[in-house]
Amino acid sequence: MRVVFIGDIVGNVGRDTVRRLIPWINDKYHPHIIIANGENAAGGRGITASITRELFECGVHGITMGNHTWDNREIFEFIDDEPRMIRPSNLAPGTPGRGSMIIKANGKSLGVVNLIGRTFLPPAEDPFRTADEEIEQLRRTTKCILVDFHAEATSEKVAIGWHLDGYASLLVGTHTHVQTNDARILPEGTAYVTDAGMTGPRDGVLGMEKEAVVRRFLTGLPARFTVAEGKWALNGVYAELDESTGKAQKVQLISVDEDSWIAT
Amino acid sequence: MRVVFIGDIVGNVGRDTVRRLIPWINDKYHPHIIIANGENAAGGRGITASITRELFECGVHGITMGNHTWDNREIFEFIDDEPRMIRPSNLAPGTPGRGSMIIKANGKSLGVVNLIGRTFLPPAEDPFRTADEEIEQLRRTTKCILVDFHAEATSEKVAIGWHLDGYASLLVGTHTHVQTNDARILPEGTAYVTDAGMTGPRDGVLGMEKEAVVRRFLTGLPARFTVAEGKWALNGVYAELDESTGKAQKVQLISVDEDSWIAT
Amino acid sequence: MRVVFIGDIVGNVGRDTVRRLIPWINDKYHPHIIIANGENAAGGRGITASITRELFECGVHGITMGNHTWDNREIFEFIDDEPRMIRPSNLAPGTPGRGSMIIKANGKSLGVVNLIGRTFLPPAEDPFRTADEEIEQLRRTTKCILVDFHAEATSEKVAIGWHLDGYASLLVGTHTHVQTNDARILPEGTAYVTDAGMTGPRDGVLGMEKEAVVRRFLTGLPARFTVAEGKWALNGVYAELDESTGKAQKVQLISVDEDSWIAT
Amino acid sequence: MRVVFIGDIVGNVGRDTVRRLIPWINDKYHPHIIIANGENAAGGRGITASITRELFECGVHGITMGNHTWDNREIFEFIDDEPRMIRPSNLAPGTPGRGSMIIKANGKSLGVVNLIGRTFLPPAEDPFRTADEEIEQLRRTTKCILVDFHAEATSEKVAIGWHLDGYASLLVGTHTHVQTNDARILPEGTAYVTDAGMTGPRDGVLGMEKEAVVRRFLTGLPARFTVAEGKWALNGVYAELDESTGKAQKVQLISVDEDSWIAT
Ligand SMILES: [Fe+2]
Ligand SMILES: [Fe+2]
Ligand SMILES: [Fe+2]
Ligand SMILES: [Fe+2]
Ligand SMILES: [Fe+2]
Ligand SMILES: [Fe+2]
Ligand SMILES: [Fe+2]
Ligand SMILES: [Fe+2]
Repeated sequence: MRVVFIGDIVGNVGRDTVRRLIPWINDKYHPHIIIANGENAAGGRGITASITRELFECGVHGITMGNHTWDNREIFEFIDDEPRMIRPSNLAPGTPGRGSMIIKANGKSLGVVNLIGRTFLPPAEDPFRTADEEIEQLRRTTKCILVDFHAEATSEKVAIGWHLDGYASLLVGTHTHVQTNDARILPEGTAYVTDAGMTGPRDGVLGMEKEAVVRRFLTGLPARFTVAEGKWALNGVYAELDESTGKAQKVQLISVDEDSWIAT
Repeated sequence: MRVVFIGDIVGNVGRDTVRRLIPWINDKYHPHIIIANGENAAGGRGITASITRELFECGVHGITMGNHTWDNREIFEFIDDEPRMIRPSNLAPGTPGRGSMIIKANGKSLGVVNLIGRTFLPPAEDPFRTADEEIEQLRRTTKCILVDFHAEATSEKVAIGWHLDGYASLLVGTHTHVQTNDARILPEGTAYVTDAGMTGPRDGVLGMEKEAVVRRFLTGLPARFTVAEGKWALNGVYAELDESTGKAQKVQLISVDEDSWIAT
Repeated sequence: MRVVFIGDIVGNVGRDTVRRLIPWINDKYHPHIIIANGENAAGGRGITASITRELFECGVHGITMGNHTWDNREIFEFIDDEPRMIRPSNLAPGTPGRGSMIIKANGKSLGVVNLIGRTFLPPAEDPFRTADEEIEQLRRTTKCILVDFHAEATSEKVAIGWHLDGYASLLVGTHTHVQTNDARILPEGTAYVTDAGMTGPRDGVLGMEKEAVVRRFLTGLPARFTVAEGKWALNGVYAELDESTGKAQKVQLISVDEDSWIAT
Repeated sequence: MRVVFIGDIVGNVGRDTVRRLIPWINDKYHPHIIIANGENAAGGRGITASITRELFECGVHGITMGNHTWDNREIFEFIDDEPRMIRPSNLAPGTPGRGSMIIKANGKSLGVVNLIGRTFLPPAEDPFRTADEEIEQLRRTTKCILVDFHAEATSEKVAIGWHLDGYASLLVGTHTHVQTNDARILPEGTAYVTDAGMTGPRDGVLGMEKEAVVRRFLTGLPARFTVAEGKWALNGVYAELDESTGKAQKVQLISVDEDSWIAT
């Protein structure tokens, strides 16, 4: 089973990039299932119903979120009715939405779990124990499990990678918006990448217009951050999973931008 | 001018790796100058006089540090007398040691600045302004400037990259111990990488033995972290700088481990 | 039912103060039960078996802890066998020790819960929900419930006060080591104080020798903190609880030091 | 010289309280100068020009601010022209406004410094060194110096108290909105209180409507916080300073609320 994961989609530049590149992704990687992190899809802050639809229509099969899940309040109206979108599972009991899902497409079935880290981030339930519980549950349906661990600290991400080695098929970190160069398959068969990187404006600061962010660091004064313009970049991960064992057979970074990409 | 930067050297595995691979680095990249981050060289915590000597003897020309600078108290005895080692420049006034240096080797002269971030890290002076001042000072001697920005948050690192674009020749982030896949030359000529990654045990958590770190995340109980054993990895950055302008002409990640490396 | 709570006992000065003042406390307040926070009793860091015994012998009936619970590793040897000592209840599942206890003395029965905050402190389970569960459990035995909420942020402490109003009899904050001037009975009958303050050396910084702490703020360099010497202070809270309803009838700060105290 | 400091004024309830109680304060304490922290005066978030005027008109002589200084963007229009209002001095160079001022009233002259802490708060310049510089400057005009140290951590506040003992006349902490019970004169003559507390709605969470804050802790979901309604409280500090030495002769907490206060 071939899976593509697309890192945090930021704003309209990110959405346009996804729409433009999914045909190329399909041509190049022939994924059965495409999952994307959509926590920044609406102007950098959350997601809306129409953006959700737009992403599904252009070929994304499932959406994960993160610390920006609730930034656009429209999500409260549709998250409970959208089985193809999840928010971090280890939020407080009673939180709207779900923390895991089974995505079925092209004859394949992929369990997807979304988790959020606790280092340098607001309080949450323990992501390690939540991961164990969610994966155990999902494995009753399918052995192929993708975990999007939305976290800041590399220590927490690398540690959960080792903790889930042999249980998750593919563990992809998100949130830092910078792709890490450490894709590999751990000894027990879990494909691991600390951060998938982001999909959106290449020349901002994590997708936001850079002048405002730099000024903020220099002055400490409040600033309105808007999504950057200019050239795009798409970052993500490609993996091949063995459906009989749930183990990864291959993992590989995807990283293209407006200058490096050549449409086929 | 060709420069190699080696990411945070962790413990004896990291030091052995550096000693073993510098001949290969010299063969492959022909660097005029090699700079390495040594904040974790002594068992993961700081550095000692003898380790410092050892690193210089095997071919490192200059050493930078980070938040672990003072972990081994031996440093207070020699840092003021060691012109080839710097600690973050933006520490409190009166801090022992220096925050920048000129490294001369193989007929070349490289200015080096060490800075520490303020996001998710203890208080420090403003790294942006300190960078401006240090670079202005160093440029009186040489146009080629390497900045090691030891920081946690990708936003702070990417922002300082944009801020210093055209002033620094090579801006390398350190501290997260995971190499990022974003090496590039910014529009005004600064080569930029968010994190160089680490050099040491490949299969730990940021170089430390993984069982203890995972247990710490699971239990919250205190734990003694020791440097991991097993296979090594070396991560760093290679750059070519134009000495007449100080601008970067090429930047490239270095990432090898015990399995991928083939001695020449 | 009359209850005295003694704020964080720091080091030998704190222990000596408790031993010296308990007779005076008994004379003045006639408490049925005395509870003390002991997380800093052993040189500022944790507690030992002999200190625990010493505190019980001089008249303390129950001990609560906090973020320093595990600082002295001796605790792992006796915490599971000591029914009169608790650590924060909302630590990870499987943590040694208990998070609540029933203390019986002088014909009275007091339920005691220890909780830790999550703002500006390491990850923990939700203290609000844990409080609800622990109190529900304890109320099967007694309606009089003391909660020691060991937390940094006033917002989290005041909020849990409102959340537990009518469920806890006495909610005492600890951890900041500075007594707050806000003792009062909330509308539904819970006596509330944001922080009980500390018991130990009066002229340090939170009980530690002040020169080292000030130097640490000025230099950022590592420093060994030791318990301060000099005059003592004792801070705590006195409350009267209605045993038939569990509601507080009176709450009052206790704050004396070597200069203000006159032995009776 | 008699000085009254009024803790963080929150919203319209806080402003109304100040207006109602200043006559009582004048009757009871006969202060020459009244200073108030106004960072939360406009609906809990910042301050406006008309609120500033209102506070001056009802008897406040000088206003200090804190981390909420810029929450209401109107401040950028008038802060540079208002000599009776200061924001933390240790913000980035070039920040609008001033960090210290001399307030003259009733024939007396008081130097006032505003500082912000760095523990659990965004990056800032070193408050200890900034305090030293500001006080040295102000003492050329007057020996009576009030410092409003707006900070979260008790350790940082107590430490700056010791650091400034003998240099400041009155060091009042603000920001936690809960008054501490530790007013005293340190050995070298500085009157010290860790936190003055707040002035505004008594039954909220730090002045904000409590249901929303408690729900936020329980759910982690975004929430709009509004200023609480209901009964008021006023918290502050009264001090008497020796003008010939700048040392404090007396310090005393002020804490009244709608139930305890009896108009004279
Ligand atoms: Fe994101
Ligand atoms: Fe995020
Ligand atoms: Fe490091
Ligand atoms: Fe580091
Ligand atoms: Fe304590
Ligand atoms: Fe504590
Ligand atoms: Fe405030
Ligand atoms: Fe504040």
